[in-house]
Amino acid sequence: MSFNSIGEIFTVTTFGESHGEAVGAVIDGCPSNFLLDLEAIQYQLNRRRPGATAGSTTRKETDEFKIISGVFEGKTTGAPITIIIENKDAKSEDYSEIKKFYRPSHADFVYDKKYGHYDYRGGGRSSARTTASLVAAGAIAQQLLDTQNITIASYVSAVGEVRIPEGYELDLTQIDSNSVRCPDLKTANEMLALIENIRKEGDTIGGIIRCSATGVPVGLGEPLYEKLNANIAKAMFSINAVKGVAFGDGFDGARSLGSKQNDAFEKTDAGWHTTSNHSGGIQGGISNGMEIVFDVAFKPVSTIMQAQTTANRNGAQEILKPAGRHDACVVPRAVPIVDACTAIIILNHLLMRHATLSF
Amino acid sequence: MSFNSIGEIFTVTTFGESHGEAVGAVIDGCPSNFLLDLEAIQYQLNRRRPGATAGSTTRKETDEFKIISGVFEGKTTGAPITIIIENKDAKSEDYSEIKKFYRPSHADFVYDKKYGHYDYRGGGRSSARTTASLVAAGAIAQQLLDTQNITIASYVSAVGEVRIPEGYELDLTQIDSNSVRCPDLKTANEMLALIENIRKEGDTIGGIIRCSATGVPVGLGEPLYEKLNANIAKAMFSINAVKGVAFGDGFDGARSLGSKQNDAFEKTDAGWHTTSNHSGGIQGGISNGMEIVFDVAFKPVSTIMQAQTTANRNGAQEILKPAGRHDACVVPRAVPIVDACTAIIILNHLLMRHATLSF
Amino acid sequence: MSFNSIGEIFTVTTFGESHGEAVGAVIDGCPSNFLLDLEAIQYQLNRRRPGATAGSTTRKETDEFKIISGVFEGKTTGAPITIIIENKDAKSEDYSEIKKFYRPSHADFVYDKKYGHYDYRGGGRSSARTTASLVAAGAIAQQLLDTQNITIASYVSAVGEVRIPEGYELDLTQIDSNSVRCPDLKTANEMLALIENIRKEGDTIGGIIRCSATGVPVGLGEPLYEKLNANIAKAMFSINAVKGVAFGDGFDGARSLGSKQNDAFEKTDAGWHTTSNHSGGIQGGISNGMEIVFDVAFKPVSTIMQAQTTANRNGAQEILKPAGRHDACVVPRAVPIVDACTAIIILNHLLMRHATLSF
Amino acid sequence: MSFNSIGEIFTVTTFGESHGEAVGAVIDGCPSNFLLDLEAIQYQLNRRRPGATAGSTTRKETDEFKIISGVFEGKTTGAPITIIIENKDAKSEDYSEIKKFYRPSHADFVYDKKYGHYDYRGGGRSSARTTASLVAAGAIAQQLLDTQNITIASYVSAVGEVRIPEGYELDLTQIDSNSVRCPDLKTANEMLALIENIRKEGDTIGGIIRCSATGVPVGLGEPLYEKLNANIAKAMFSINAVKGVAFGDGFDGARSLGSKQNDAFEKTDAGWHTTSNHSGGIQGGISNGMEIVFDVAFKPVSTIMQAQTTANRNGAQEILKPAGRHDACVVPRAVPIVDACTAIIILNHLLMRHATLSF
Repeated sequence: MSFNSIGEIFTVTTFGESHGEAVGAVIDGCPSNFLLDLEAIQYQLNRRRPGATAGSTTRKETDEFKIISGVFEGKTTGAPITIIIENKDAKSEDYSEIKKFYRPSHADFVYDKKYGHYDYRGGGRSSARTTASLVAAGAIAQQLLDTQNITIASYVSAVGEVRIPEGYELDLTQIDSNSVRCPDLKTANEMLALIENIRKEGDTIGGIIRCSATGVPVGLGEPLYEKLNANIAKAMFSINAVKGVAFGDGFDGARSLGSKQNDAFEKTDAGWHTTSNHSGGIQGGISNGMEIVFDVAFKPVSTIMQAQTTANRNGAQEILKPAGRHDACVVPRAVPIVDACTAIIILNHLLMRHATLSF
Repeated sequence: MSFNSIGEIFTVTTFGESHGEAVGAVIDGCPSNFLLDLEAIQYQLNRRRPGATAGSTTRKETDEFKIISGVFEGKTTGAPITIIIENKDAKSEDYSEIKKFYRPSHADFVYDKKYGHYDYRGGGRSSARTTASLVAAGAIAQQLLDTQNITIASYVSAVGEVRIPEGYELDLTQIDSNSVRCPDLKTANEMLALIENIRKEGDTIGGIIRCSATGVPVGLGEPLYEKLNANIAKAMFSINAVKGVAFGDGFDGARSLGSKQNDAFEKTDAGWHTTSNHSGGIQGGISNGMEIVFDVAFKPVSTIMQAQTTANRNGAQEILKPAGRHDACVVPRAVPIVDACTAIIILNHLLMRHATLSF
Repeated sequence: MSFNSIGEIFTVTTFGESHGEAVGAVIDGCPSNFLLDLEAIQYQLNRRRPGATAGSTTRKETDEFKIISGVFEGKTTGAPITIIIENKDAKSEDYSEIKKFYRPSHADFVYDKKYGHYDYRGGGRSSARTTASLVAAGAIAQQLLDTQNITIASYVSAVGEVRIPEGYELDLTQIDSNSVRCPDLKTANEMLALIENIRKEGDTIGGIIRCSATGVPVGLGEPLYEKLNANIAKAMFSINAVKGVAFGDGFDGARSLGSKQNDAFEKTDAGWHTTSNHSGGIQGGISNGMEIVFDVAFKPVSTIMQAQTTANRNGAQEILKPAGRHDACVVPRAVPIVDACTAIIILNHLLMRHATLSF
Repeated sequence: MSFNSIGEIFTVTTFGESHGEAVGAVIDGCPSNFLLDLEAIQYQLNRRRPGATAGSTTRKETDEFKIISGVFEGKTTGAPITIIIENKDAKSEDYSEIKKFYRPSHADFVYDKKYGHYDYRGGGRSSARTTASLVAAGAIAQQLLDTQNITIASYVSAVGEVRIPEGYELDLTQIDSNSVRCPDLKTANEMLALIENIRKEGDTIGGIIRCSATGVPVGLGEPLYEKLNANIAKAMFSINAVKGVAFGDGFDGARSLGSKQNDAFEKTDAGWHTTSNHSGGIQGGISNGMEIVFDVAFKPVSTIMQAQTTANRNGAQEILKPAGRHDACVVPRAVPIVDACTAIIILNHLLMRHATLSF
């Protein structure tokens, strides 16, 4: 029931705070004798790193990792793999202001009330810095999924009111072609312009990431309460600022008719598929072999560069002045995090699927 | 890692299929020495029972339950509580047609591919009949939450395009005043009319349930990966036909600005609260003491009374003719299921919260 | 973390009390499409049934079971399998005496203090009657192990001071040839005579069961904290009256030398084996392909037919007069329980072992 | 189901290999706002350190630890606590001989067969070096138990045939008064002499640790399958070289009579207790408030300084010549490991006990 672990078989336990010595992860249950690609891990960490995308903070982190257990002669041994990512740019800030306040829509208040004592430096454990651990672990999961021809690709589909128009054919190889991680360049440019405006106003803006997983075989997901969609959703809600998750047609499907939403089956030489994919690749909580598609809604980040009236820790209303680093839009940076969490969950379900005998 | 269990401390394991002998649940971890209100359990089962709401099937089930363990002299003993709900109206159907097909958007295909052998009668384990078990278990959870002054109230906020207008003041005592379970009577009547039309067309329609939980104390939810919202979302995606879950402003918030979404803190004589509740009562995955609010999107049910072209199990395209029972809109019936799952998760987190020492 | 579940993948959740309506089990994670042998389940239940062995009570239980979910057309479906065993002979006793007392070395005291309210009838949940559920579930596990050529055979190796002499060649097909379940007939007769004497004195006596599992492949057990021996031991300590578990040479090995205890490796045409088996088939917590051997020590049962001075529930010292049913020696009846628990754990580890990818 | 985690609420996940960069642990679920005593952690690590006891190796490890997360301003924050203990003396050995062999009664064989690839340096993950992580985590658990007046004290009760005579009154403050950790000085001296002889012969010898836990309140342990004794036993079998665990009178009790083994209850001004403690403080899997007593049997360590004939990895019989470091008797060094594991389990059960509501 470990609170900081994700996955039951491929189990990732993360640790670390925003301004502690390091963040990191212990991966248990990783298949053995697998040659790790360390550069692929660094590549994903670089994608998440501050500064890599539009709208992100100026925090300087190289996010170099080291593996201190579980790997010998380049290969996984079956023992727990421990990844450490040191915090480099964590010392110089002034917390005297933050320390006084429960910042609006931050976790300061609930952490303080829950734990009695908490690390206010940069949000401590509640900081999105902790997602670096997930990204590193997810990069290992992705390598294992690669061997099974399972591909995961997330991208920004909306920033504020700017969204990729319906019916566009997208080229998912173009996700990283721009700093907003939208595979449609025209929309990407509109998003970039919007984020730049928001930044100038000292404000922040939310958005949506769409994730697509292809190559997932039929049969992943364990009904009734370990369904594949249920576990993906749970993982998504573990990511900072996520407020909604929807599969396939999602909330739009709730306005629609059965006659329009049903996905008919077809069998061709290429095997079984459905002639539409309103279900988003999951039926009865189990993958049906089609593309798995889901949307993740991110609220605008809570740290804004505008004065806000709120209560300080003594309960007195006071003006919280803007300070510290500031992501105008966190959504592009969250793309590798969505990728990583999805990879962990799908790999975990793939391994779970093997835990049986065939008759 | 039991696939059919929900909750880590208040653990509900369900069993049973649509047309087997019974459905039921084993509840482990229920606090002892608690006098159970059996009528309150039956009341919730009756709310879920077919025929109790607009748009539901004609299956005849009394859904009477019996408790065969864990209760002595009316009180819980701390031993597992086993609830049995017999299937009464499960014998008369003709499955010859269903047996031939993978019905569109049903779980027939994935169950068959995953398990090699499955119970096609009424969907077997994938049937929404299994939610009766959850409702019974949830009714026990609700009784325990009552002792802590925690109240859960779900209602239908949208059917198709008909939704409760923004800004309405709702009287949640009126949820069961109409058969569509919408607390606003005017909207309820529009929903009823819509459902009746859809039924006549042999079609089905989706909708949205909003859940409100009040009285939840600050501090429930265990970051990072057992967050309260993450576990509520996971439970919701365990319910048949659910395709989306969103907290607070959800997907709308993703279009908005930080300056508009932030919830400022205030301390009054009544204690801490926020001056708005865009967060839906959860920050950093932890309850902040405000009303917990989330939306659950249901797709239209997949069994329609219209002919559909799809593949039979041999892979040949064929016309699946309408047959069997039919819910034109499952959303009103799902209200007690959302209540039950929410109660189970909140109670589980409440118990988890106690599993510590205070310093 | 369900308290009444055993096994992480093949998960058995039991329920029921000595004098409630029924005992039973829900089995989750059972491989699908497997044709169950119902007679084999009844056979094991009969082995455990009161009256089947030397020294057991006169309680009349047919221990007939029914399966109410998870099996369709004789085969497992992958859905939870629910087994119900009604309590038939549970109504006639007089509890007025038992109710007054905390019986020495029974669980009355701890249950009352822990739960505040408890079912004193026949010990309620703490009764060995609950092991019927395990035996039924274990009989299913054994059938699955049969398909992998894994055989489990437990027998009584000691009753009181009477034990099978060292160095005997045992014929494990003879375990059920006598009512004390000792495969050596000469020793069995001595045990029977001893038990008969103990019974006449109204006393009880302990003993040891040795379990042998053959055909277990190399590689079961997950270090460091889900070792095969660790999980077997945990399961054994779940059985009523068990006070000790030891693998291979066990406590005797603790008196010995490395030069005498080490098991050298040898590779022949038949494959790898060790030239001795002081380790009991497990090294580093992982099966090494040899016979798995362990001993389980049972204390004498606590209900004796002799007067005992102890405190009643009000704290006053009083004489507890003998009453109720009485097992002079529970060890022979525990043989199928040890078999069942071992089968569940080994099957669970076998399935766990599959939950990986090979490189 | 993380294989390298112990405890469901106070969850310790360990990592690291004998000759990797470090060993360590992540502790999840540690109560917050608790001022850690770092010296008390180091004290326990020093007790386990090679060279601290009779019969141990000459490996040079300072076993200094650092905490890199979860502690802020000296106090626990509720976030995962990560402890790192670097391996200092891990570089200089020659593995060419070890690499060729499956050493008798070591885990080399099973690791190689299970994982396909393994870290042969000093046994890799199967080395007792990994217990340093447990000792550090256990030292934190012990500090938390101190606040509840729960005391754990383990000691060596037997080395080979030398054991503390029955009926001795022991002074448990004297455990660390000698390098064999036997609180009876006369017996300790005999043990020391025996170990010295064994070492000279290049042999190794086993022994028994007895653990005593006092102050444990009534009610810890969750029947049926999370019993306190079951979880203690499981933890003990996780320790290298453990082959047996027994509670109270253990295997001796299996030779005895109910009339002699039963523990009668008594209530005095000091509260409830039993007039004897054959049960070892646990009845029905639940602590009864008496001293918890159990024995742990350790086999002699498998690395001996004598030539052994065994198979090399190619399957050829060959003579394995003695090499490397050598513990003549590991039992004294295992005392703090038994303490640590016991502390973790009891704390975990204490927290679990709180996870309820009282009626």
